[in-house]
Amino acid sequence: MESPPADTAPQTPALTYRAPTEEDHARVLAVLDRWWDGLGGDDGARQRAGLLPRLFFQHFTDTSVVVERDGHLVAFLIGFLSQSRPEEAYIHFVGVDPALHGHGLGGELYRRFFDTVRAHGRTIVRAITSETNTGSRAFHARMGFTEAEQSFPGYDGPGTTRVTFVRELEP
Amino acid sequence: MESPPADTAPQTPALTYRAPTEEDHARVLAVLDRWWDGLGGDDGARQRAGLLPRLFFQHFTDTSVVVERDGHLVAFLIGFLSQSRPEEAYIHFVGVDPALHGHGLGGELYRRFFDTVRAHGRTIVRAITSETNTGSRAFHARMGFTEAEQSFPGYDGPGTTRVTFVRELEP
Repeated sequence: MESPPADTAPQTPALTYRAPTEEDHARVLAVLDRWWDGLGGDDGARQRAGLLPRLFFQHFTDTSVVVERDGHLVAFLIGFLSQSRPEEAYIHFVGVDPALHGHGLGGELYRRFFDTVRAHGRTIVRAITSETNTGSRAFHARMGFTEAEQSFPGYDGPGTTRVTFVRELEP
Repeated sequence: MESPPADTAPQTPALTYRAPTEEDHARVLAVLDRWWDGLGGDDGARQRAGLLPRLFFQHFTDTSVVVERDGHLVAFLIGFLSQSRPEEAYIHFVGVDPALHGHGLGGELYRRFFDTVRAHGRTIVRAITSETNTGSRAFHARMGFTEAEQSFPGYDGPGTTRVTFVRELEP
């Protein structure tokens, strides 16, 4: 085996993108609290885990993705094709390791999702976030989403005020 | 208007079955605690609501059903076609008003779901329940399910030990 030339910069492990498997469910749950920095305490942790039941890692793997670097999970996107709205797709939950924030990885996950669902004929992508999540609202604006509803109290039950996003995809 | 003959038994309002709309989301959440008799306290209530985010009432309405009697919600089934497992369908959450228990309504909801997903070419139906829910385990056995895993600790995260059910559908 040849060694790399001495003047080569240290290799940054490449990012690998793949569909999640059922085994990734526990891996994703394991990073949530750290990535969200314990936001909301135990209640927040339960809410986050509750948003990611195992079913997403069984039945919606072909429109979802996990990203690894050097074998470690660094990002994921869980999304699906709407079953009863044939033009729509939905981005349910996205996480990026805070150590990799600011490098465009969230945007890359969204663009890959757009491409995937466009290939299935989808022309509308929806997503939601908490009303108070200004970072997420700015991110979705940059990704071309508009806020269909800027404040939807009780969206997912009492105490869950959400912003709803919508974006049209070019065919 | 004619009155009914005097010897007719009092009319029992008929059950009506239809696909849920987004407006049914709040109606379903509103009955959960009563139907489950407050099982698990506030934590149980949050878990149940967390299992039924609005997305199921937006994107999986054509394989789900709500049942009304005299305009009141008396039962529902939320289920979907697996997106990434083309032979499978999944029953996510079912509720029946306790006042109507013992009349076969749960079984009727399951049979309708089987028919619906069979029409989409599905041959395998899966579902889960809590390990301790003996009523649900007996019901699924009667409906022709076998227990693929009788005790799956951490199925949906810490503290969630589940039984998994599977049933083949005749083509």
